[in-house]
Amino acid sequence: MEIRTIAWVNNKIRIIDQTKLPQGIKYLDIKDLKTLWIAIKELKVRGAPVLGAAAALGSFVGIRYSRAASFNRFMQELEKVAKYIGSSRPTARNLFWGLERVKKIALDNKGKPIRIIKSMILKEAQAIIQDDRVSCRKIGSYGARLVKDADVILTICNAGILATIDYGTALGVIYRAHQQRKNIKVYACETRPLLQGARLTTWELQKRGLDVTLICDSMAATLMRSGKIDKVITGADRIAANGDSANKIGTYNLAVLSRYHKIPFYVAAPASSFDLSIKSGQGITIEERDPREITELFFKKPIAVSGVKVFNPAFDVTDQGLISAFITDKGIIKPPYKKNIQKTFSK
Amino acid sequence: MEIRTIAWVNNKIRIIDQTKLPQGIKYLDIKDLKTLWIAIKELKVRGAPVLGAAAALGSFVGIRYSRAASFNRFMQELEKVAKYIGSSRPTARNLFWGLERVKKIALDNKGKPIRIIKSMILKEAQAIIQDDRVSCRKIGSYGARLVKDADVILTICNAGILATIDYGTALGVIYRAHQQRKNIKVYACETRPLLQGARLTTWELQKRGLDVTLICDSMAATLMRSGKIDKVITGADRIAANGDSANKIGTYNLAVLSRYHKIPFYVAAPASSFDLSIKSGQGITIEERDPREITELFFKKPIAVSGVKVFNPAFDVTDQGLISAFITDKGIIKPPYKKNIQKTFSK
Repeated sequence: MEIRTIAWVNNKIRIIDQTKLPQGIKYLDIKDLKTLWIAIKELKVRGAPVLGAAAALGSFVGIRYSRAASFNRFMQELEKVAKYIGSSRPTARNLFWGLERVKKIALDNKGKPIRIIKSMILKEAQAIIQDDRVSCRKIGSYGARLVKDADVILTICNAGILATIDYGTALGVIYRAHQQRKNIKVYACETRPLLQGARLTTWELQKRGLDVTLICDSMAATLMRSGKIDKVITGADRIAANGDSANKIGTYNLAVLSRYHKIPFYVAAPASSFDLSIKSGQGITIEERDPREITELFFKKPIAVSGVKVFNPAFDVTDQGLISAFITDKGIIKPPYKKNIQKTFSK
Repeated sequence: MEIRTIAWVNNKIRIIDQTKLPQGIKYLDIKDLKTLWIAIKELKVRGAPVLGAAAALGSFVGIRYSRAASFNRFMQELEKVAKYIGSSRPTARNLFWGLERVKKIALDNKGKPIRIIKSMILKEAQAIIQDDRVSCRKIGSYGARLVKDADVILTICNAGILATIDYGTALGVIYRAHQQRKNIKVYACETRPLLQGARLTTWELQKRGLDVTLICDSMAATLMRSGKIDKVITGADRIAANGDSANKIGTYNLAVLSRYHKIPFYVAAPASSFDLSIKSGQGITIEERDPREITELFFKKPIAVSGVKVFNPAFDVTDQGLISAFITDKGIIKPPYKKNIQKTFSK
């Protein structure tokens, strides 16, 4: 199975439309910024790492026809594009990281002709794609050291192939352990409201031949008490300098339950998800999404009384104290996190 | 608003078809046992207390045309009917309690003509309905003493009008506090997989003028950490002698989260939900339901990959140690539960 969640094909951004899964793979070719913005907002393309690539490719799409005659004018346009892309999903650290990488390339090549800068931006976006493939495999290798034969692993949302280019972070660890012939089993939380666990994680794990069982998010506690879960591994959307980690809503829930049931809880994420400019989780902006994600299943048939108030945060923040370790492309990071995160990423 | 979840009307069992809510009230008139069994199994009629009434009315429907010439033969038929009804939902204590009340009436009147016994069974079923109305109001009154002005209460599933005859257990407490002009707010967990919180609880709370906000089950932890929740009140399907309580899947989850966030966690239930014959939660049979409840939303469009394994327990068990108090029709029961439950119900 060769799946590329996002790629640059025929001068367009080709993505898998993840809202169409698990019914089947449908590709979307995106050639303008607004279509990309909507695709990100509507989670047609999603997952922290993949959003870094989407943001960078989007930057190129947004400025490729720029007629700016001066570098300053060009940068103004690029900033505007970046601001627009950044408004789609405020919590995702990698989105902004992708935008920053692109801006840095432009600034570092200030003296060059603008058409050259444009092509360097595209090259940088493609480098991000390549870097992600490498970084996910590193995460997989480091993380697999923590996985024992016959382990049963619980995960939430989708931190797999579909959240990255072609391998995954939390699921990358699982894929690597599976490749090492460790006989592991996976439980996937369905991940309300948008069911990324049910729709995406079960799909890709099954495609890769993993043993996966689907549960509703509320069943995790019972499963943990039954002694069936050996470890929990999730992804992250943004990790603060002290280790507090924003991830899909329901992750903090699992972290508290893991602590209560004495089950190790790991967060797998690339360096690009760490945001050292933010001290703690309190500084992380949490995206609140359309109430209809909860009151209407996929915006179709209503499932709650008309007009009911809804609280729909897309993410929650897990206290660093609940995290057993971070699995990153720079190695495993253990507590104390403030010190060790600093040490790892200032190398 | 006058709603009767279940009633005996024109020689039929009239129920509100709860699978049609919140779109609208649709009544079903049931005159045979098999239709009732299916209605219970498919949750057209549901909620622990209401199942006691359904079981008793169902017993009458099952034996009303009996041609048994002897009492023994009649009791055999009644036992068969009871066994059949009991097979619909094994965890619900009240279902069996309703069946036992009916059997007891028959046995206590062994000497009477069978047509008289039949009419006494119907009368007993109607008494169960009346008793429930009284008992829910007692639960409401006792429980409301625990509720302060401006309290924000979190609940799961539906332990309201639609789970009882016309008032509720957990929601009965809320209705009573509301009647006392306490300015309370409610958060309702949607309660996957069958969304009783989204479909039923928001519907009836809104009808009664309560301030209700809907969340996905996985959002409870974040809400608790934000300091917005003052107490959690849930119903119960079966409570063991030591206080371990089976209730809708996700309840144990909330209990663990409540403990972690130091929020009181109350279980509201009538005496008929206590099963003193079972020592602890380990003895409670947990119903596992159709995987399609999770993989297909209301058995329609698939939301998970085809053929995925599913774990779908309908209930979980909350350790007695996580429960702050029981709110019953006999008063508030505090720890130590083994002793105090015994004391309360052997009076």
